[in-house]
Amino acid sequence: MADSLTREGTPQAVLIDGRESTELAVSDRAVHYGDGLFETMACPQGSPRLLGSHLARLAEGCARLAIRAPGRELLGAEISRMTQGSGGCVLKLIVTRGTAVTRGYRPDGGEKTTRILLRYGWPSYDPALERDGVRVRTARVRLGENPALAGLKHLNRLEQVLAAADLSDADEALMYSGSGALIAGIMSNVFLVDGAMLLTPQLDACGVAGVMRSAVLQTAAAEGIHVEIRRLVADDVARSREIFLTNALIGIRPVRVLDDAPLTVGAVTRRLQERLRQRWSAAGAPP
Amino acid sequence: MADSLTREGTPQAVLIDGRESTELAVSDRAVHYGDGLFETMACPQGSPRLLGSHLARLAEGCARLAIRAPGRELLGAEISRMTQGSGGCVLKLIVTRGTAVTRGYRPDGGEKTTRILLRYGWPSYDPALERDGVRVRTARVRLGENPALAGLKHLNRLEQVLAAADLSDADEALMYSGSGALIAGIMSNVFLVDGAMLLTPQLDACGVAGVMRSAVLQTAAAEGIHVEIRRLVADDVARSREIFLTNALIGIRPVRVLDDAPLTVGAVTRRLQERLRQRWSAAGAPP
Repeated sequence: MADSLTREGTPQAVLIDGRESTELAVSDRAVHYGDGLFETMACPQGSPRLLGSHLARLAEGCARLAIRAPGRELLGAEISRMTQGSGGCVLKLIVTRGTAVTRGYRPDGGEKTTRILLRYGWPSYDPALERDGVRVRTARVRLGENPALAGLKHLNRLEQVLAAADLSDADEALMYSGSGALIAGIMSNVFLVDGAMLLTPQLDACGVAGVMRSAVLQTAAAEGIHVEIRRLVADDVARSREIFLTNALIGIRPVRVLDDAPLTVGAVTRRLQERLRQRWSAAGAPP
Repeated sequence: MADSLTREGTPQAVLIDGRESTELAVSDRAVHYGDGLFETMACPQGSPRLLGSHLARLAEGCARLAIRAPGRELLGAEISRMTQGSGGCVLKLIVTRGTAVTRGYRPDGGEKTTRILLRYGWPSYDPALERDGVRVRTARVRLGENPALAGLKHLNRLEQVLAAADLSDADEALMYSGSGALIAGIMSNVFLVDGAMLLTPQLDACGVAGVMRSAVLQTAAAEGIHVEIRRLVADDVARSREIFLTNALIGIRPVRVLDDAPLTVGAVTRRLQERLRQRWSAAGAPP
């Protein structure tokens, strides 16, 4: 997953506040403090999948950080402009508090939100990753716990950078919090299958509440699969024979090996993969 | 402190990788992940105070984040270029892992470190802040704990942004960790005076190991003042009648009010202020 997610490095196009540009004001608070949020949207056929969920999460993040949210129509128009006729792409949207009005951490309140849209090529994923699964390790780096930031897809991502730098030959790594709770993969959310039931970590202390995680929760509910969102620990993981990962780009990927122990690609994982495929197919945007 | 620290917003000059520019490549990993470090240097008479400490901390941060450290001579030359004939200024140095080679958290290893130098006007501090002290509150936002990042002056600063946004009429706020340890002010380190002894928080789980904190520790040692660096909690703070804050710009500032309770500007604080003044005066760079 890591390799296939990271191969396309240079954006094909960038729009900053509606203007084609590849340069950002160096005084932007994203540069100094990571003072902003982002969304990474899958556009396998040109239009963003789960756009409503992405924009809703962004709006919630802006509210929690007291960043003025960009207008939804303006964002919609700029997203269309970036994806129109592009074929498959990955669209990254970064929203920052804006250029610093004053020096120092304290926001002035007069900052003007910066919108950055970056278009990358659609990654040509090996279908085996979705079918047969990915190799996963347990990350050595843990996630700091802070309810003030939990759930947000904010720009403070050094923990993920350090964990990803340490991936070596694995596709992804499971991250635990400082207090020992399972939280997520570096770039994905995680589900454990426990009999006919799904378990996924609560994200009230750290972690990102992924849009694909939400889509899976909804799909599971529609399928009558019981889901528990709760504190999970290493013992819960050790007991699991079926685990899968989710994110907006990859959808659902089974874990085939965790720390050298083989896992099963099981029936619940397959069923959810199939339902999501149907859903996107019906929506005219197959995965 | 907040107001006087944040008034001068727009840099007078910016140097990016040795080139005068106010724009940064939008693909720089500082923008996407806060993947870098910074130093804020006081240059009250044009040359940076504690330059050696700043560059040593930066080098240690680069090593811990596996960012290629810029050469010290190159940095020294660029710092001279930025401060020459400038009179008093604040010099901010940001070092990032560089422009993304690949998409995603994982560093490629082939990134070229970005150096950003920003020169701001020297703030005209009210001398009363150093003499009579500052108003301090207890921050509601806590600091997440992560030994992998503890001590570093990295670019993931949303916790400080949120706490600073919440300062209202206070000059500074004391921050505690998630587990209840006193860590620091939002933009300063903190010392408690306990009889003839100094106490300051250990920074092995979070916080920034400030260069002025180091200077105070050295000065205290030279003065024969015993210092304990250990876990401190709210009870330790409540017992203290003499507290002071430090950072590279402000030096030492007494706390005159903490959460509406008046504190004493005491003899230990005065003595350390005086010794630092003498030291800088002797070095030709008075505060």
